[in-house]
Amino acid sequence: MKKIGNQTVKFDNMPGIIGNYSIVGPKEGKGPMGKYFDCVMDDDMCGQDSFEKAERAMLEKTVFKCIEKSGLSVKDIQILLAGDLLNQIISSSFTARDLNCCFIGLFSACSTMTESIALGSCLVDGGYFDNVLCCTCSHFATAERQFRNPLELGSQRPPTSQWTVTGAGATIIDRSDNSPFVEMVTFGKVCDYGVNDVNNMGAAMAPAAMHTLKTHFDDTGRKPEYYDAIFTGDLGKFGSEILIDLMEKEGYLLTHKYHDCGMLIYDKEQKTFMGGSGCGCSASILNSFVIEKLRKKEYKNVLFLSTGALLSPTSCQQGESIPGIAHAIVLRSDK
Amino acid sequence: MKKIGNQTVKFDNMPGIIGNYSIVGPKEGKGPMGKYFDCVMDDDMCGQDSFEKAERAMLEKTVFKCIEKSGLSVKDIQILLAGDLLNQIISSSFTARDLNCCFIGLFSACSTMTESIALGSCLVDGGYFDNVLCCTCSHFATAERQFRNPLELGSQRPPTSQWTVTGAGATIIDRSDNSPFVEMVTFGKVCDYGVNDVNNMGAAMAPAAMHTLKTHFDDTGRKPEYYDAIFTGDLGKFGSEILIDLMEKEGYLLTHKYHDCGMLIYDKEQKTFMGGSGCGCSASILNSFVIEKLRKKEYKNVLFLSTGALLSPTSCQQGESIPGIAHAIVLRSDK
Repeated sequence: MKKIGNQTVKFDNMPGIIGNYSIVGPKEGKGPMGKYFDCVMDDDMCGQDSFEKAERAMLEKTVFKCIEKSGLSVKDIQILLAGDLLNQIISSSFTARDLNCCFIGLFSACSTMTESIALGSCLVDGGYFDNVLCCTCSHFATAERQFRNPLELGSQRPPTSQWTVTGAGATIIDRSDNSPFVEMVTFGKVCDYGVNDVNNMGAAMAPAAMHTLKTHFDDTGRKPEYYDAIFTGDLGKFGSEILIDLMEKEGYLLTHKYHDCGMLIYDKEQKTFMGGSGCGCSASILNSFVIEKLRKKEYKNVLFLSTGALLSPTSCQQGESIPGIAHAIVLRSDK
Repeated sequence: MKKIGNQTVKFDNMPGIIGNYSIVGPKEGKGPMGKYFDCVMDDDMCGQDSFEKAERAMLEKTVFKCIEKSGLSVKDIQILLAGDLLNQIISSSFTARDLNCCFIGLFSACSTMTESIALGSCLVDGGYFDNVLCCTCSHFATAERQFRNPLELGSQRPPTSQWTVTGAGATIIDRSDNSPFVEMVTFGKVCDYGVNDVNNMGAAMAPAAMHTLKTHFDDTGRKPEYYDAIFTGDLGKFGSEILIDLMEKEGYLLTHKYHDCGMLIYDKEQKTFMGGSGCGCSASILNSFVIEKLRKKEYKNVLFLSTGALLSPTSCQQGESIPGIAHAIVLRSDK
């Protein structure tokens, strides 16, 4: 490995992605990315009697199917790096209980997918573990009742709001020679421009995305055109526009190669307003569309940033603004 | 580094602890460990108008004082690894906002101190970062109202309950030659023996502590008598007794060298029943008493396990039991 700048690490011996799996709910399955997901659930209750149990069941299925798809067995997995949006990350902890491996619990809101892959790649590259299972999930109904209002209340959604994706994604990285590879990671810093509207997450997260992107380009000397595609996690329509503006002010033009998972996952007709959000948004698209395109060499290199809003209902009620964070990973089809 | 077994990593080039700092509330200051802490607050509100803001102010102070004590400056710190008990780890995220460094948010309940040092040691040993700031905190009043009942309700505490420590601890590890050193880490697995009483955390966490201890001894070939002292985080009186029993069944005798931070921090007269708990319990004792004894060479080597109960109020209300986890670190006074 080689450290580039203060925030970017380049892996000389790039960890490979040996397994990936994605599950989404029925609404996400009907969206434009529907055909790419490994599994679209018929019922977002997953046969459980509570939304929280449904979210956990979805993550458990994602993890076990990912292991199966990778050709490994459950006992081969050495460590799980996982987090989610629920208080005390219960979806992840209870999933870890079902695996007989080490567990590192993470919380980075909707940026958990790239946080886990960034950390996991260091652990594999450094030889601390032979493989790492990275995963995260979110569920529309659990997120609404925990962060905003219970669905039963029928609250009207404001125009800047996003729709939390019901979905999960898992990635297994190891030292094998399996494409795609994690070439670099850029760890994010917390940014806060003072946005305090819990129904406008895109605006809260855009500055952090800008900061990580700019730092990545500064650290590596690369420009946006170097990449076949650049993805952000869940800035949504409004947040993406802010990011494009902020980047332009920094002298970087994000062109047609730039996509936001939050904008890709739903159709306009699905009335999600600004698009998708939640840990499951970038996790499901990374572990389906993006990794498959890299595997087929339709993409040669991709810069992928999940973005997270580090708020809690309590911090907002006590008058705090919403800090954001974004961790970036660079995936390549070839070493 | 050298991997020993599936869960233990030995650092050939041991990271050193260049900085440590601890703050506790007035009640903890009056306990038997009071004289060891860097700072005892007069007022557990820290001059703030809410308990949550007080907890955050305490963590911020701990972090900045730790940097000052280490001789580094704020801009030298490359990455913060932190977590806490509050929903969406807001104490940690908002503290990260005040530092201009990368941030990895963690959640491992009361085992966050050793989770952060275990991960941070890998990041320093592997050369990914020159230094890592690891920290965590807890506050009696925020934990009571989030996990159990608001203090204003005046609920009676059952005999097996523990008292969440108002306190914080921070550790800076880097590649310098500063004693004490992190020789090894043993990452924990999630264990669940079916305990579902939120007022009996010690019993819920003891199996995880046993599993990590046993794995550490199996992986390294060491025995309890190898260490000058073995500490668990916050099992409390009842949990410690369970651990001693469980270890005896596994063929390991924990002798008078075994201590539990939860039992050390309060006097019997302070009516905390089973003793202290919370992230701040093991964090404050590690970053005062334990590290200072190692620095003075009164201890040559210490095995230190923070222990965490991975529950949420929601998981308990939905009938789930309480999974536990414990991550271990080995600290040495000399390389």
